[in-house]
Amino acid sequence: MFDTVAVAGVGLIGGSLGLALRSRGLARRVVGLVRRQATVEAAIALGALDAGSTDPSIVRGAELIVLAPPVLTMPAIAAEIAPHLTAGSLVTDVGSTKSRLVRELPLILPPAVAFVGGHPMAGSEKGGVEAARADLFEGAVYVLTPVAETDAPSLARMAGLVRALGAVPVEMEPALHDEAVARISHLPHVAAAVVAEAAIAGTLPLDILRLLVAGGFKTTTRIAASPPEMWRDICLTNREAMLDVLSQAAARLDSFREALQGADGPALLAAFERGKHARDLLVPPNSPSPDPR
Amino acid sequence: MFDTVAVAGVGLIGGSLGLALRSRGLARRVVGLVRRQATVEAAIALGALDAGSTDPSIVRGAELIVLAPPVLTMPAIAAEIAPHLTAGSLVTDVGSTKSRLVRELPLILPPAVAFVGGHPMAGSEKGGVEAARADLFEGAVYVLTPVAETDAPSLARMAGLVRALGAVPVEMEPALHDEAVARISHLPHVAAAVVAEAAIAGTLPLDILRLLVAGGFKTTTRIAASPPEMWRDICLTNREAMLDVLSQAAARLDSFREALQGADGPALLAAFERGKHARDLLVPPNSPSPDPR
Repeated sequence: MFDTVAVAGVGLIGGSLGLALRSRGLARRVVGLVRRQATVEAAIALGALDAGSTDPSIVRGAELIVLAPPVLTMPAIAAEIAPHLTAGSLVTDVGSTKSRLVRELPLILPPAVAFVGGHPMAGSEKGGVEAARADLFEGAVYVLTPVAETDAPSLARMAGLVRALGAVPVEMEPALHDEAVARISHLPHVAAAVVAEAAIAGTLPLDILRLLVAGGFKTTTRIAASPPEMWRDICLTNREAMLDVLSQAAARLDSFREALQGADGPALLAAFERGKHARDLLVPPNSPSPDPR
Repeated sequence: MFDTVAVAGVGLIGGSLGLALRSRGLARRVVGLVRRQATVEAAIALGALDAGSTDPSIVRGAELIVLAPPVLTMPAIAAEIAPHLTAGSLVTDVGSTKSRLVRELPLILPPAVAFVGGHPMAGSEKGGVEAARADLFEGAVYVLTPVAETDAPSLARMAGLVRALGAVPVEMEPALHDEAVARISHLPHVAAAVVAEAAIAGTLPLDILRLLVAGGFKTTTRIAASPPEMWRDICLTNREAMLDVLSQAAARLDSFREALQGADGPALLAAFERGKHARDLLVPPNSPSPDPR
């Protein structure tokens, strides 16, 4: 499908992409641009890369370049690789927020290069290439965010790649994507962090709390173990949409506290019923249990 | 271990207890007191009961009586069965909050009956006897909450039963238990409901949100699918401890929103770092992925 693919940023997503491209025979060669030389050896040993370097000229000659560093680093990485891109090549990114990136990245890249924004809805609370998996994208929705300027054949090529990875391509406007992920992905990350921190905020010995940890705490806070830098960046680049949903969550938490303060059984019941209704709407009750990874 | 065991309230926990007692040969006979006759047939078909009835006299002659109805129903059920209890028998409950029950239930039961409060730290977002599992308690912590008046041989007998179920008996003061579960179990339930409800609070079409649901949303909100009545009751019976931890969670959410409003990167990073630190303290990073059930 591709001769050389370059992955800039070889962490969980970049590494999984390398593994998937190589194991599915979708690229003759996968090279990586990394920050630390140690990542090159690790990624090659894991089978995620054929070669790698800390020098941006490694992307030279690549047909497809995937930008997969932390969101806030995207523009800097795009600027670093820009002088080494071949006319006619295709650049995509895997950033978790899209409006800003889809506006800014094409201005940094050479005009003769096509750009298609993307966001695979797959991940793990574990970061780094060591957590990479060849099957990470299988069955996952992979959002592509074309805009008016997007080259149609390049978009079609990206959709073909997504399908070849075993994922499901879904086209969406960048702003719509950002509002939806604020609700469905970014809010849960903030909530998981808040719940985990509040759990240990009292004076109870940790040993007692640890004894009582059961499935509910484990699943609700699983993604609190995610890399903090990544989530800081995602919040900063999706500020408006997140402030909106965070204020809605805070209002609901406040009215729940008020109901509990007043021992208002019907109001508490209604709050839990609304939560169950929303969850059942979004994750049908007879769907398989969530993959804990 | 026991001749006849009576389970009053045959839902997820009562049903699982019946299944475990019978499959492990810990009781010659397990009978159930239920609200609806249909539950008797379902529980017998599933292997959770030998016999059942809506008439409280079904508990007559039982050596061990397990109270497993919704928390707020406990006192009423205890009053219903009280006239049918044999002197020397042992009564325990499986209520999720303990201070109030451990104080109130012995006053309702006949003095010649021993009472030991308990709370198995096992469950599922699915309620009802249909969700019962013989292995629900395997490896789980099972809290016993003796007080000054608790009969020592009866406590030892309960600890023996817990071990025979494959669970780990842990003794704890009722008030300590209640504060700990407010933090480690009840707060996550409220948070899951709030996150699920806030996710659909905007104007985005549900189809878009559903498309983007990934592992993070599924695990964070899994327990929002739990029975709302049960969680209303738990909140009402653990009000003080829950108000405390909910206000701590609300304060953290507010300061997170303030940091995001001010695009304060270091404050956002610190918040995610504190969340990760707390989660890693309570669920060590190399522990197995949470059981999604």
